[in-house]
Amino acid sequence: MSNPNAGYDVVILGGGSGGYACAFRAAELGMSVALIEKDKVGGTCLHRGCIPTKALLHAGEVADTTREAGQFGVEAEFKGVDMGAVNKYKDGIVSGLYKGVQGLFKAHKVEVINGYGKLTGPNTIEVDGRTVTGKNIVLASGSYSKSLPNIEIDGERFITSEHALNLDKVPEKAIVIGGGVIGVEFASAWRSLGAEVEIVEGLPRLIAAEDADSSKQLERSFRKRGIKFHTGKFFEKAEATADGVRITLPGGKTVEGDVALVAVGRGPNTEGMGYEQVGVEMDRGFVLTDEHLRTNVAGVYAAGDIVPGVQLAHRGFAQGIHIAEHIAGLEPAPIDEKGIPRVTFTEPEVASVGYNEDEAQEKWGKDKIKSYKLSLAANGKSGILKTQGFVKMVSVEDGPIVGVHMVGARISEQIGEGELIYNWEAYADDVAKLIHMHPTQNEALGEAAMALAGKPLHVHD
Amino acid sequence: MSNPNAGYDVVILGGGSGGYACAFRAAELGMSVALIEKDKVGGTCLHRGCIPTKALLHAGEVADTTREAGQFGVEAEFKGVDMGAVNKYKDGIVSGLYKGVQGLFKAHKVEVINGYGKLTGPNTIEVDGRTVTGKNIVLASGSYSKSLPNIEIDGERFITSEHALNLDKVPEKAIVIGGGVIGVEFASAWRSLGAEVEIVEGLPRLIAAEDADSSKQLERSFRKRGIKFHTGKFFEKAEATADGVRITLPGGKTVEGDVALVAVGRGPNTEGMGYEQVGVEMDRGFVLTDEHLRTNVAGVYAAGDIVPGVQLAHRGFAQGIHIAEHIAGLEPAPIDEKGIPRVTFTEPEVASVGYNEDEAQEKWGKDKIKSYKLSLAANGKSGILKTQGFVKMVSVEDGPIVGVHMVGARISEQIGEGELIYNWEAYADDVAKLIHMHPTQNEALGEAAMALAGKPLHVHD
Repeated sequence: MSNPNAGYDVVILGGGSGGYACAFRAAELGMSVALIEKDKVGGTCLHRGCIPTKALLHAGEVADTTREAGQFGVEAEFKGVDMGAVNKYKDGIVSGLYKGVQGLFKAHKVEVINGYGKLTGPNTIEVDGRTVTGKNIVLASGSYSKSLPNIEIDGERFITSEHALNLDKVPEKAIVIGGGVIGVEFASAWRSLGAEVEIVEGLPRLIAAEDADSSKQLERSFRKRGIKFHTGKFFEKAEATADGVRITLPGGKTVEGDVALVAVGRGPNTEGMGYEQVGVEMDRGFVLTDEHLRTNVAGVYAAGDIVPGVQLAHRGFAQGIHIAEHIAGLEPAPIDEKGIPRVTFTEPEVASVGYNEDEAQEKWGKDKIKSYKLSLAANGKSGILKTQGFVKMVSVEDGPIVGVHMVGARISEQIGEGELIYNWEAYADDVAKLIHMHPTQNEALGEAAMALAGKPLHVHD
Repeated sequence: MSNPNAGYDVVILGGGSGGYACAFRAAELGMSVALIEKDKVGGTCLHRGCIPTKALLHAGEVADTTREAGQFGVEAEFKGVDMGAVNKYKDGIVSGLYKGVQGLFKAHKVEVINGYGKLTGPNTIEVDGRTVTGKNIVLASGSYSKSLPNIEIDGERFITSEHALNLDKVPEKAIVIGGGVIGVEFASAWRSLGAEVEIVEGLPRLIAAEDADSSKQLERSFRKRGIKFHTGKFFEKAEATADGVRITLPGGKTVEGDVALVAVGRGPNTEGMGYEQVGVEMDRGFVLTDEHLRTNVAGVYAAGDIVPGVQLAHRGFAQGIHIAEHIAGLEPAPIDEKGIPRVTFTEPEVASVGYNEDEAQEKWGKDKIKSYKLSLAANGKSGILKTQGFVKMVSVEDGPIVGVHMVGARISEQIGEGELIYNWEAYADDVAKLIHMHPTQNEALGEAAMALAGKPLHVHD
């Protein structure tokens, strides 16, 4: 398909996780696909989000390991962090994966149209004066780092996560405004890399969307690591000073630093893109869809961060794939948003799938929910890693496990088993029957299930 | 129960993984239990096996991380390994878990009888002249490090894994006789801690019980790490020299080192324990059982390393629990040995569950088996860790996944998802539907399943 005006089966606006997953799957299913992207394909996650952040966090882990090597009998001297070298490592990871994604576009024969696209009708997108026509349109224009009315992002003192990923030195003292996932991840990385860190969060706890036990454990670990935080405090004033920033808390207390990361969430990239003009139903900038990701305008779908819900790359993947399969008539089952795994890649990591205990009690009734929280102190491999935390399972009484919540170093990698448990509606006893590998952290999931099923092995009440 | 002659519901001979798991579960089910142990409860795994080995391997990982810190932008100087401190760390882990197990014995009110037990009848065990009677007897006497007829273990030049765990310095050059799980784990740990290592293995490949692809990948990684190995070569002579050891290979080539670890498998601890005299059916020292772990002598069960099969602590746990539940009349389902996860904790780690591709082809027919091997090069988090390897899934055509095989740093922790997939007989498409957490190593399992199901996301053939 070389003439974009001939009409594609699918035209996708945005080349991030949701957009490209949809493009590849649609191509696999035999459709002609064009994808419009104003920047680089791969989107926020690859270039300015998940991937570079995790590289930064891993550099932090290496720094921590080096500092703490003596505890394991290894003699080493930590000498510092070379942010130039960290950035080179990080950028190498991004560019390698970027090449991979570009290769996949070629392999799938997806036409990439570079430019700023605007929806002009139910079947048309205008790109720099050119009209691209599709039998189906997929809106996947992604999100941006929000700020607050009383903060001006200048990229030097008040910065967003995009700026934070490209600092040429570790801040001496960083203020993080927002204790959600993005805020605590940067707080953790910077602390590991040598900064003083202080978080200001308006809600009563860090990562308030997670199970209350997870917040408590993360807060305890952060305290131990010397990461300061103020919760339940919306700041009153944020101002630049001669050599940094000053945040004023209620009551007049101030916290100062050389830089302030504003991590107060991500807003949908939908302004001025023609969605409303074409009649797409929206809510505060987000695009509303049904369970098949269809907007109210026939033939127009939406995927990723512009659709209300958790803003995660793999949710975008799932939605993009769903849309392609739905267009192809494969009748995919609606996505259960609660079944999408969530991880906060701090040290220690926080991972979850399904319902928090509070949510489960609200949904099924307090007396119908039971849970078991297995301390990682009972887990040999976690002891070997010298990490603390827990694996908590929440189940319906005489019913399936409806929530798995975990905190600990490296614990994010256990989320796959949690995801299968939740999505396949396993009972504690189903999991308890399968004796897990000894000695791994994975074993903690088996032990938690055994305890929840009333037949604990290495724990005792 | 203070009088051991009054007769217990269950008397267990051996306090290792199989024995104590049986004891705790039997106690939970309301039975009176005595357990006879000549040494420390916890057995080989806790005191001389899995746990201390994994601590040693983790110290090695810390050493490697420190050496390679510069690749991640962290400036550090590796100065050496203090084996005294490594041993202190390792022993601390063991003693902490040992306290835990002792606490569980107390909490479950299991009577521990210290001494050397010998089976004297279908219901009796003699311990230092005293007769302990049980309605049911469980033989769980464990295993020992085997040697070969032409090697004399002296504990200094020719050593077993037990000695290897307690060296007061890292060998300069270690020879490892045997390229199975134990051999390659020590080879890996010693290399990380700074030793030259050379492995001599008679079979055609390292870890020959694993999928051929796993062996190949481990061998490639070992070569990169400078670990030498000779496969397909049964050595001809092993002798002590003035200051070390010399092993002569077929053809006359010799390899020399300061110490040789003999890691040629573990034999059952059954000699002179009265089993044969009481009529228990045995085969080359192993105790034969039916699918419920019953020996041919009514009321006598066996668990753990004395029962033919993979010698793994968690298999012992599963068998011990099975026996307790069988005695209690709970009718537990027989254990599928193929569903027991297996890990070799080398750098990189090797993990598997279910059938190797070769085995699957043999069982179901070559044309009925398909597989997909996803390189970790396509996995963002593995790139961040700078590790190489793969996730391979083997499935029956239009049938379930019957084998999961993985190689890579930290990949052992993915075995939980593999275990659920195999044991719950999931089809590739069942797993493919669940979009995995991005960016994790766990994601590689989702991507492998998607590719196997014919709808790849980040790979393309």
